[in-house]
Amino acid sequence: MIGSGFIARAHSNAFHQVGRFFEIPYTLDLKVVCGRNQPKLQAFASQWGWAETVADWREVIDRKDVDVIDIAVPNALHAPITMAAAKAGKMIFCEKPLAISLTEARAMAGAVKDLPNLVWFNYRRVPAVAFARQMITEGKLGKVYHYRSYYFNQSGVDPAKGHTWRYRAGEAGSGAIGDLLSHSIDMATYLNSDITELSAMKHTFVPGREVDDAVSAMVRFGNGSLGTFEASRFGVGRRNGIGFEIYAEKGSLAFDLEDMNRLRFYDATEPANLQAYRNILVTGPDHPYWANFWKPAHLIGYEHSFIATLGDFLENLAGGEPFHPNFQDAVQIQGVLEAVEASANTKTWIRLKSK
Amino acid sequence: MIGSGFIARAHSNAFHQVGRFFEIPYTLDLKVVCGRNQPKLQAFASQWGWAETVADWREVIDRKDVDVIDIAVPNALHAPITMAAAKAGKMIFCEKPLAISLTEARAMAGAVKDLPNLVWFNYRRVPAVAFARQMITEGKLGKVYHYRSYYFNQSGVDPAKGHTWRYRAGEAGSGAIGDLLSHSIDMATYLNSDITELSAMKHTFVPGREVDDAVSAMVRFGNGSLGTFEASRFGVGRRNGIGFEIYAEKGSLAFDLEDMNRLRFYDATEPANLQAYRNILVTGPDHPYWANFWKPAHLIGYEHSFIATLGDFLENLAGGEPFHPNFQDAVQIQGVLEAVEASANTKTWIRLKSK
Amino acid sequence: MIGSGFIARAHSNAFHQVGRFFEIPYTLDLKVVCGRNQPKLQAFASQWGWAETVADWREVIDRKDVDVIDIAVPNALHAPITMAAAKAGKMIFCEKPLAISLTEARAMAGAVKDLPNLVWFNYRRVPAVAFARQMITEGKLGKVYHYRSYYFNQSGVDPAKGHTWRYRAGEAGSGAIGDLLSHSIDMATYLNSDITELSAMKHTFVPGREVDDAVSAMVRFGNGSLGTFEASRFGVGRRNGIGFEIYAEKGSLAFDLEDMNRLRFYDATEPANLQAYRNILVTGPDHPYWANFWKPAHLIGYEHSFIATLGDFLENLAGGEPFHPNFQDAVQIQGVLEAVEASANTKTWIRLKSK
Amino acid sequence: MIGSGFIARAHSNAFHQVGRFFEIPYTLDLKVVCGRNQPKLQAFASQWGWAETVADWREVIDRKDVDVIDIAVPNALHAPITMAAAKAGKMIFCEKPLAISLTEARAMAGAVKDLPNLVWFNYRRVPAVAFARQMITEGKLGKVYHYRSYYFNQSGVDPAKGHTWRYRAGEAGSGAIGDLLSHSIDMATYLNSDITELSAMKHTFVPGREVDDAVSAMVRFGNGSLGTFEASRFGVGRRNGIGFEIYAEKGSLAFDLEDMNRLRFYDATEPANLQAYRNILVTGPDHPYWANFWKPAHLIGYEHSFIATLGDFLENLAGGEPFHPNFQDAVQIQGVLEAVEASANTKTWIRLKSK
Repeated sequence: MIGSGFIARAHSNAFHQVGRFFEIPYTLDLKVVCGRNQPKLQAFASQWGWAETVADWREVIDRKDVDVIDIAVPNALHAPITMAAAKAGKMIFCEKPLAISLTEARAMAGAVKDLPNLVWFNYRRVPAVAFARQMITEGKLGKVYHYRSYYFNQSGVDPAKGHTWRYRAGEAGSGAIGDLLSHSIDMATYLNSDITELSAMKHTFVPGREVDDAVSAMVRFGNGSLGTFEASRFGVGRRNGIGFEIYAEKGSLAFDLEDMNRLRFYDATEPANLQAYRNILVTGPDHPYWANFWKPAHLIGYEHSFIATLGDFLENLAGGEPFHPNFQDAVQIQGVLEAVEASANTKTWIRLKSK
Repeated sequence: MIGSGFIARAHSNAFHQVGRFFEIPYTLDLKVVCGRNQPKLQAFASQWGWAETVADWREVIDRKDVDVIDIAVPNALHAPITMAAAKAGKMIFCEKPLAISLTEARAMAGAVKDLPNLVWFNYRRVPAVAFARQMITEGKLGKVYHYRSYYFNQSGVDPAKGHTWRYRAGEAGSGAIGDLLSHSIDMATYLNSDITELSAMKHTFVPGREVDDAVSAMVRFGNGSLGTFEASRFGVGRRNGIGFEIYAEKGSLAFDLEDMNRLRFYDATEPANLQAYRNILVTGPDHPYWANFWKPAHLIGYEHSFIATLGDFLENLAGGEPFHPNFQDAVQIQGVLEAVEASANTKTWIRLKSK
Repeated sequence: MIGSGFIARAHSNAFHQVGRFFEIPYTLDLKVVCGRNQPKLQAFASQWGWAETVADWREVIDRKDVDVIDIAVPNALHAPITMAAAKAGKMIFCEKPLAISLTEARAMAGAVKDLPNLVWFNYRRVPAVAFARQMITEGKLGKVYHYRSYYFNQSGVDPAKGHTWRYRAGEAGSGAIGDLLSHSIDMATYLNSDITELSAMKHTFVPGREVDDAVSAMVRFGNGSLGTFEASRFGVGRRNGIGFEIYAEKGSLAFDLEDMNRLRFYDATEPANLQAYRNILVTGPDHPYWANFWKPAHLIGYEHSFIATLGDFLENLAGGEPFHPNFQDAVQIQGVLEAVEASANTKTWIRLKSK
Repeated sequence: MIGSGFIARAHSNAFHQVGRFFEIPYTLDLKVVCGRNQPKLQAFASQWGWAETVADWREVIDRKDVDVIDIAVPNALHAPITMAAAKAGKMIFCEKPLAISLTEARAMAGAVKDLPNLVWFNYRRVPAVAFARQMITEGKLGKVYHYRSYYFNQSGVDPAKGHTWRYRAGEAGSGAIGDLLSHSIDMATYLNSDITELSAMKHTFVPGREVDDAVSAMVRFGNGSLGTFEASRFGVGRRNGIGFEIYAEKGSLAFDLEDMNRLRFYDATEPANLQAYRNILVTGPDHPYWANFWKPAHLIGYEHSFIATLGDFLENLAGGEPFHPNFQDAVQIQGVLEAVEASANTKTWIRLKSK
């Protein structure tokens, strides 16, 4: 694993826990973790069970006893590490957003196309989100009219955070767009449809800050539905508030990650006097991933979305079916992000090509 | 109308509004209102459209041009006014609790038995409560296991309120028991079943206060279900929080008056992965009383429960069918309240006779 | 009153009820109501207490004993009735949207500028909305970052409704834009700031329908905040779902009309471990309008927003201060609606002039 | 570890995870797990990382290389295993309820009194519950008036579950009382005060079932507050619904495990117009245990309550301070449970001695 920050903790946890909850035909050895600050890295390795530490990520890639490279570092490093790891024939897991430009993303996807690969858009595997997808696929909603997406946190307000790499254009590429909107676009593409055109607006509230603090977009989807997106680091009161609302012919769905074990569903096919939003606790034996975890209503948390992502990847690895979301999927997302930037910069509508 | 306090406002409003929302074959003339404080009474009459005012309730009863006596005064006066009004052959509406003792209540019910009469247990006619009753009657819940009832407000905490008649035993009879629990018992009897035995506890938090501040009871109902009741004037944070939760074979229901346009329903007969509490906005054309009021989701409020009570009474008056809840129904409730007092005083279980 | 449909019921109710809840130095006589279908109009007049009925609105305006003209008819008639009523020197109340074009709206505002006038953007007077305004004015939020607005109902889905005037361009002018978005723009202007530029999108889901079913917009406000608006008649599951979310420096506010007695508030100035969304039941003696209505937590409904609008108007009439929202305020809203149409048609950003 | 059922999974997980989230000066080796069904036990050991398996729990106790015995088997076995393990001088962790009688519990507590010991009343360590305790200890609530407790699941309804040990009196001792109410009593004692007297009712809905399906109690606490308890396996719609509501002088608190990352708080010391229930997401750096887990609003789940329990135990082990809840604490809880049974059997109020 390259990286030892917050998200590297979540990945490490998944590596340890996946075998407890998923039936995987592998044993995972946490060989080596790479980071810049050696004392902190030592502590990290000790806490999270990594056998060795190194300072240079190239050393990890050179190791013959390493099969998987997990990239959990600032965005600008995703491409060089991926290119090197792909050359070395490793399986590659990469944090989102995949890259800091569409060009870069395409090159990365090309490089890994014959290697098993995964991009950590982990929220797809929150059971409630996976169940939303299942309901949509089963036709429970019918034709979709509106897809509303939001992702609010308040990280941009905190002066302390303003000094991290996430606020430097060279390392992060963008602000709320790459950090937050990328998740929202992935979720929308997964649940609804490809985006065919969009108009966007972005804004930086803090003078001198290099990246965007907030972004909004109006879109049209390939399935004829309309969409709105908001992502902001100035959503005071929200801390990890990604959510969606879908209004469709046969009903509606709504989800919010700050209440991640639940999915709101309105069934418009029921008798009129019983129609209502129901708040499904997506923790039953018939719900996605639940057989893997605990008993009904014995809730799971943030970390389990990483475990489920890894579980699916490893359970299906031998079968050879491509895993999703992979680098190729992330290229499409990067294309939308780039169109968002372009639209915001030019104040015009932008059309997107279909896959 | 005898009385000009808060509840007399709610009654007056209903007298004016009933004809707007219900098709009643009568015109209501608000002839005369009676109260003690004449300047305040004048203002009240002017604001609420009463033609005349008097100081002595006996004058109202003596009037030949008055067909209905509405009693909205402290509990201890319900009996003497009822007895006189019954003697004069008036229709009688009475605030709850009907009386300050079961003996008194029985005498009152006897006196009015050949006269149209009504007791203002208005919460039965909140559309969401009436819809709960309809669902239960239609068999949507099946056998009931648990009926949980509560009524919390924080009125007892306010020192200013401690000087009103509601805190004097002679006028109020009891505290939370008559004021709050009476509504809860009426609702339980209406929605679930008669109470067959109970164990109760009461408490007065304020030293020297003449009436109970809080009461709890465990009960068994005639239909085999178990019940718990809580009513308190020390429910800090709640202001008119009467509610119920029903757990039954085929599902559950829950209601809270502070969210009075909604009913929570869990349908345990649905596919397992869709089972959930749904929050029904009981404001649709197929819901009780809604055709009388506004469009769906155009909410109604507290006052409408009085309007609906009066509407039902007047729509059915010519038909001759007894209205519910009437004085006889209130006798049964008074019997439960008296058993609650007795149980709390003796620390024993008390059996109640069936109707 | 010109009109006898649903909204005319709400107005009539307000005329009767305003004196019960507000101290107004006038007696309101409901003289004459005008409508096309005479049998229905007779029933309406009887139910809602109108003394006379007429078929031609010009007759109402010609009457010397009429001081106020209330316009509750399809949008295209607002202008001719206003112009005639203004000429006759009447006070004028008009339903929203004020007009079907900005040109028309300006002419109307010019005509009534020396007459007391009111536009029924009634949701400003929902106590929770008025309290939001008070909090903002008092500085409880500080600098605003995001203003998110939505108005969803499902009226467009119902084939029966598609035959009403609201779906005919000649009578309605627009669809969701005039019907729903107009309320949202009024509320945003009232609570936040003027809109300075916008990009919009509109859509008609039903082939052949003359008006828009849904509209979205991204905006920048004069106070530096960003906004998003959605209004749709295809919000399946929502029936009168207008709401807002405000994210600001010192906290956040959120409101939804389907839960109209509550306001959600996040106070970011509190100790970190107590910061949370609180759900204020805006029904206390210190809340706007509550002293006029019932006791705390004794909820009010849809109709009370009309009563409060009329109450404010009448209480302040003698003072001579202009009432808000008036025709001039509605001109500004009409300007935004026209910019929304223009932006959606041209797929460009549109700048708005300040007042 | 003795046991390999559902709860043994939760314990195993905690043994693996505690070192990731807590700074403990020990390495935990999962030496040996004991169970009856050997093929299932093998699979369990493999999945949950136990080095060895045995069929007879006495073998585990006899092992010199085992320092801790964790008891995760049916209730009737808690005592014999505890007595043997205590004799062997092991540290002992025991599932709740501690025993099937007070006599047994006392003997067990006596036997372990000089050994580090822990009873798995894990819900005390849900961050929101621990934060409730902190707020109460800091005086944020003042004098408590009401403590309302409930624990509903629907396990009793499922015919399949009726054949497990939990429904056999010999193995379980009781039904809802030991299984559910024990947690509620622990939480009440932890958050509020000792129970001084109680009146209880129990019921078995399924004919022929050996244990109680539901239990209710009214209590008085040592701090002068009143309490009600309900616990039922017939709470259709609820699956792990333990919760409390506390009404007190300065405010109120409410919690429900099905929404375990949140605590509802009403602060009655605030300005009246801002008083409201706030829904605290107890996931911030200033909240109990949160520094151990993820970032704010990155939720945790059921399993983390076991990890936190173990973390506290191990962090404090060297210090020598007794851990709570321990066997002695569990004796007190067992005393309440026994009083509940006695009261229900005799239909009388029962007084409890103070600690």
